Amino acid sequence: MTSTRTDAVALDESSPLRHTRARFVLPEGVIYLDGNSLGALPAGVAARLAGVVEGEWGTGLIRSWNDARWMELVGRIAARIAPLVGARGADLHVGDSTSVSLFKTMVAAARLRPGRRVIVVEPSTFPTDGYIAAGVADLLGLELRWCDPADPVAAVDEDVALLTLTHVDFRTGAMYDMAAITAAAQARGALVQWDLCHSAGAVPVDLEGSGADFAVGCTYKYLNGGPGAPAFTWVSPGLQADARQPITGWMGHASPFAMTRDFAVADGMTGWASGTHPVLALSALETALEAFDGVTVEELRAASLSLTDLFLRLLDERLPELEIVTPRDHARRGSQVSFRHEHAYGIVQALIARGVIGDFRDDGAAPGIARFGFTPLYLSHADVHDAVEHLVAVLAGAEHLAPEYAERNAVT
Amino acid sequence: MTSTRTDAVALDESSPLRHTRARFVLPEGVIYLDGNSLGALPAGVAARLAGVVEGEWGTGLIRSWNDARWMELVGRIAARIAPLVGARGADLHVGDSTSVSLFKTMVAAARLRPGRRVIVVEPSTFPTDGYIAAGVADLLGLELRWCDPADPVAAVDEDVALLTLTHVDFRTGAMYDMAAITAAAQARGALVQWDLCHSAGAVPVDLEGSGADFAVGCTYKYLNGGPGAPAFTWVSPGLQADARQPITGWMGHASPFAMTRDFAVADGMTGWASGTHPVLALSALETALEAFDGVTVEELRAASLSLTDLFLRLLDERLPELEIVTPRDHARRGSQVSFRHEHAYGIVQALIARGVIGDFRDDGAAPGIARFGFTPLYLSHADVHDAVEHLVAVLAGAEHLAPEYAERNAVT
Repeated sequence: MTSTRTDAVALDESSPLRHTRARFVLPEGVIYLDGNSLGALPAGVAARLAGVVEGEWGTGLIRSWNDARWMELVGRIAARIAPLVGARGADLHVGDSTSVSLFKTMVAAARLRPGRRVIVVEPSTFPTDGYIAAGVADLLGLELRWCDPADPVAAVDEDVALLTLTHVDFRTGAMYDMAAITAAAQARGALVQWDLCHSAGAVPVDLEGSGADFAVGCTYKYLNGGPGAPAFTWVSPGLQADARQPITGWMGHASPFAMTRDFAVADGMTGWASGTHPVLALSALETALEAFDGVTVEELRAASLSLTDLFLRLLDERLPELEIVTPRDHARRGSQVSFRHEHAYGIVQALIARGVIGDFRDDGAAPGIARFGFTPLYLSHADVHDAVEHLVAVLAGAEHLAPEYAERNAVT
Repeated sequence: MTSTRTDAVALDESSPLRHTRARFVLPEGVIYLDGNSLGALPAGVAARLAGVVEGEWGTGLIRSWNDARWMELVGRIAARIAPLVGARGADLHVGDSTSVSLFKTMVAAARLRPGRRVIVVEPSTFPTDGYIAAGVADLLGLELRWCDPADPVAAVDEDVALLTLTHVDFRTGAMYDMAAITAAAQARGALVQWDLCHSAGAVPVDLEGSGADFAVGCTYKYLNGGPGAPAFTWVSPGLQADARQPITGWMGHASPFAMTRDFAVADGMTGWASGTHPVLALSALETALEAFDGVTVEELRAASLSLTDLFLRLLDERLPELEIVTPRDHARRGSQVSFRHEHAYGIVQALIARGVIGDFRDDGAAPGIARFGFTPLYLSHADVHDAVEHLVAVLAGAEHLAPEYAERNAVT
């Protein structure tokens, strides 16, 4: 039995997240399936930033470090992110880019395992993870070892200091079993880090329960913090006393405003700060996270699976020839659906021309991937239905074969 | 002959910068002498950020990386900062915090001098410089050596990889002779880095002419980029081919969107980027720098010296007992004036209560310092006159001895 738009609307009407779409500003005529790259604008952010700029900075000036409690932004944001990733706010730092955060955790991990000289990275990870690992290896005289994505623990032997994996693959949307892999790699003496960039805010994450050692995550994807928003870093409570990050700037000092000559690290995750907090970006992020108020991780997950299930079902019905690369198994699926296609670039571009925004990812080896992210806070089942209708029309009309897409289509 | 307010107003009327105050939003009833800590709000920033948030992020969504040219923000900002520091835009990177920037340059310097195991830091530098140097030394097995602030080159011997100095001292406002010190330290085989946090935008800086090797500077002080705005990093053109920064994130890749597995560093300063560019902060900074449009460094310097000269002259006339710690010599004076006082904390607080905002800095050893920064773009000679009148009234009325200031006054 074919799924109809009426069926989709019925699913929306019974969704526990049917009210959260109003927490976002979405442009007319757009179906936004790229929140896994840049999350949409939460409704309160513009007003918050205007207040920070005109009131706190413009009028309060330097006094706002106290009066507007800018020093507390990091802690308040950490407390909001914490329940989304199964952590305590006190175990999170927020403020660096994902890349800088990865550098800090990788260096700290290497220093915790001085007899082990290898960092294991999964080769289909988001590139910056591998690039940063290569930089850390080069700096500290370590070795970067690529693992088999299907069995990352096999690469972990007695030389491995750290296994660092991305929880949800940015191309395929495939999700690892965090607890099982963590336990297996730790049993071989390695530390384990998880990159949560493509899972935090859309997929249940249980950092404490999984026994992980480190985690880093992005806030401008499913957390909707805005372009280039600062990342978060988590260090297992049991490691914090011994783990040392190398960028020991004044905001990580036990008493920064004493302005003493010698460094003394602050307790806990405060010691993971480096430079002056990026107040504008943190303010936007804090307000953005209010979109999660009253929403449980279980509701997010149920809504996400309902959306991706519908998308997959409609693709199966309407376009069964597509090569879906996202796992069907709920336990292995993140919050996106991707398919490989020799004209993936043209398909994505033709959809964008129709207002259906996904994106194209190349992996240099095989035909490219068309990637569609499903942010449960603001996407409806009706959006999913309409997106598939557009996709059917693109392919039926050969819109993806337009000459202006030919060059990138040819990159396979 | 005593200087009068009429004299001050006359100086304002003949100043070539008399029109630039209108480029800032300054609160009523405030004389802002803390632009060396957090610069005031430039007039166009609020509207720019509103446009970026609502238009580029909210409506453009992911498309804005192309359509709003977010990837070009760094280069456009670099081109605006360049003439203020005697550099080419192509030799600047913008995007990390000052602390992260210092980490990158210090590691790069150490790797360029592998046979030399010492980083020399000046002990009255802004603390984060010393803290970061300590972290780099700890990470790489180097030694941090403190120099005599009066003769930093004396500490440079054949073991020294890098001499890193702050151009203008954040407490006293004393300025080093960049060219002379650079040449002397380089003659001993060391690389030389300058921290421009307290000079860029207010004091002439000639990075290329001085022959420096590295420089890092803050954009939220005299450059008015907003709280926690990203810093800039300069690497001498002659070093760029060999200098390697360690945080090799995807934005420093030669082809980031190819998403290849292996890192390949981008040419020039693009290779100094790490994570995704902080678009909100960069957008604010770009607009903030428009306040310098049509203003030469020579005009800035002349206006700054005219303001600090007047402040010093009025202090000499009205409060000759004050212990001024800022050099009288123009060649050694930055854009601030500081005095040491056993009740410096109370004095600053009593002035703030009157709307005259300076700040207090403790150095843990001697009585504290009251510090007043003079941003030539938005401060007038009349402000200077009025500030001194307030200071005279504070001291005459013993406002600085109010009981609520007693505890911090006692920290000497």
